[in-house]
Amino acid sequence: MDKKLLRVLAGESVSPPPVWLMRQAGRYLPEYRQLRSRHASFLDFCLSPRAAAEATLQPIRRFGFDAAILFSDILLLLWALGRDLDFVEGEGPKLAPLQAEEISRLDLSALPSRLAPVGETIRLIREALPGAVTLIGFAGAPFTLAAYAIEGGGSADHLRTRLWAHHDPQGFSRLIEILTEAVIQSLTLQVQAGAEAVMLFDSWAGLLPPRGFARYVITPARRIVSALRARFPHLPLIGFPRLASAQLGPYAQETGLDGVGLDTAADPALVRHAVGAKTALQGNLDPAALLAGGAALAAETENILTALSGHPHIFNLGHGVLPATPPEHVAALLALVRGTSRQAAS
Amino acid sequence: MDKKLLRVLAGESVSPPPVWLMRQAGRYLPEYRQLRSRHASFLDFCLSPRAAAEATLQPIRRFGFDAAILFSDILLLLWALGRDLDFVEGEGPKLAPLQAEEISRLDLSALPSRLAPVGETIRLIREALPGAVTLIGFAGAPFTLAAYAIEGGGSADHLRTRLWAHHDPQGFSRLIEILTEAVIQSLTLQVQAGAEAVMLFDSWAGLLPPRGFARYVITPARRIVSALRARFPHLPLIGFPRLASAQLGPYAQETGLDGVGLDTAADPALVRHAVGAKTALQGNLDPAALLAGGAALAAETENILTALSGHPHIFNLGHGVLPATPPEHVAALLALVRGTSRQAAS
Repeated sequence: MDKKLLRVLAGESVSPPPVWLMRQAGRYLPEYRQLRSRHASFLDFCLSPRAAAEATLQPIRRFGFDAAILFSDILLLLWALGRDLDFVEGEGPKLAPLQAEEISRLDLSALPSRLAPVGETIRLIREALPGAVTLIGFAGAPFTLAAYAIEGGGSADHLRTRLWAHHDPQGFSRLIEILTEAVIQSLTLQVQAGAEAVMLFDSWAGLLPPRGFARYVITPARRIVSALRARFPHLPLIGFPRLASAQLGPYAQETGLDGVGLDTAADPALVRHAVGAKTALQGNLDPAALLAGGAALAAETENILTALSGHPHIFNLGHGVLPATPPEHVAALLALVRGTSRQAAS
Repeated sequence: MDKKLLRVLAGESVSPPPVWLMRQAGRYLPEYRQLRSRHASFLDFCLSPRAAAEATLQPIRRFGFDAAILFSDILLLLWALGRDLDFVEGEGPKLAPLQAEEISRLDLSALPSRLAPVGETIRLIREALPGAVTLIGFAGAPFTLAAYAIEGGGSADHLRTRLWAHHDPQGFSRLIEILTEAVIQSLTLQVQAGAEAVMLFDSWAGLLPPRGFARYVITPARRIVSALRARFPHLPLIGFPRLASAQLGPYAQETGLDGVGLDTAADPALVRHAVGAKTALQGNLDPAALLAGGAALAAETENILTALSGHPHIFNLGHGVLPATPPEHVAALLALVRGTSRQAAS
């Protein structure tokens, strides 16, 4: 079976490029809102294999994307390590802020059993997924998980995290190591269940000064890549250090990742030059352009396709689909990327 | 009089580098808190020449920085254009969100009289400032001012602004043009009153995709540079497009600015290469490292000094001084930059 996404991650330029969208399963889809309404808690929803598999498959059925991404949440891993986790409607995730003396109590032993439903979800998805569609598993990267654990949720400035890294680099490094091991275990479980590629989301990587970026973003990503490659030699891995497009050259070269995600602000032409010809690039349409639709959507899409023409490229957004996005704009985007509109217009 | 800061902005590498800090006047200083407590409203405080001049001078007296930066706020310019502005304690600035039909009512004619107290502040500062210290004036850059005007204050995602730019690029460009003219008038007034260099703060530049960055960040900055150069041929200009360190090469080359500010995440070694030998770089210690003090402060400072050794460099933070920063950490930083500590240790 020809899987375009896997060919691109192997370094091939494919035209038109394969396409999927971050948060392609989610609140902008009426069928998702209906499915979600049957579960009171978001955590329960993510841990219900039938519901999570169905959420994963909905956008594939509706739009025919080239990849499905496991419907889950990066914070399940912190819950699997024994941290209390609650998703508060309209406020985002809440955790008890991690204290330094609690690091030694993070419990890796419960992780396989707590994440077993995720494996079951992946098996259900693979049974139903069309053969040309690649299933992507994922995890939050260690620094981003550390930031959520320490802040107890989202944060405007992540000051507790940044201060901790400066004040107590040994303790902070120990936390990053434990999270690195947890990420390796979570991704191993996902690949064993049937994930065909995996992606590391490092949403807060761009907060770090350069030395911290090397220590807490590049080094853990390299360890994750080598641990997974040792076990699964042909597994493709994508990394997405958000807000850090200036660092993508060293990030790609030093981690050995097969693909790198570009955020909205990244200039594809500059990054293409920085990472070299072998690293696939994934991105990076502004989700606000997808929400706006029309001329802005067409122009921004064309700009990205042109900038990455001839390079191994997976078309995606630079951030997740916004909940207010009309589904028909997503259909229009797919037509633009796949050339239907361009051919019709010429 | 030898002004180190002006020599660096003329392209000279000076060792040790001149140093000042964004928000060096502010809440971390007890003398500032005392001065501030005498004025109920922050807007009144900024518009009181004696108070604003005193706030500007306090950190010069205490620490002997190489530059003073006018104590003011970028949002005064929106107030001078007729927008209601209120600074709410603990919540930040509040404005009535700008509507598309209000663009034509933005009133440049009142700007000189409304900003006259800023000119008076600058005259008072210059009378009192030691001759070796450079006085920097500033303005928010047009895109960042537009974002504040449209959102009505700060924002987590700036979605109204991003959507507006996509939906109505002509209207948005018109707004940027009016704000560009207002910035030119404000900086002209400041230079005529005695500002010796000026800085453009583009705090939200990193939100924009590459085409938007070129149109709404680089183009207005170039217009501001050429309008001010036509009037003041020797005026040095610094630009600070925050969260956009990947774009600093094109930004420096296409705007003609003398200096570029680096945010906390920027890698000085990479940026130095990108901008070329003539553009001065200003930055970029993590304010959290200054708050932490000790070994983190020493290591991060040394790292920046080493990365920019031999390049025209103005030492600064990558973002403003955090209010909880102990003033003695600032004194320790100055000793580190000026080599007192390094000499004492060797």
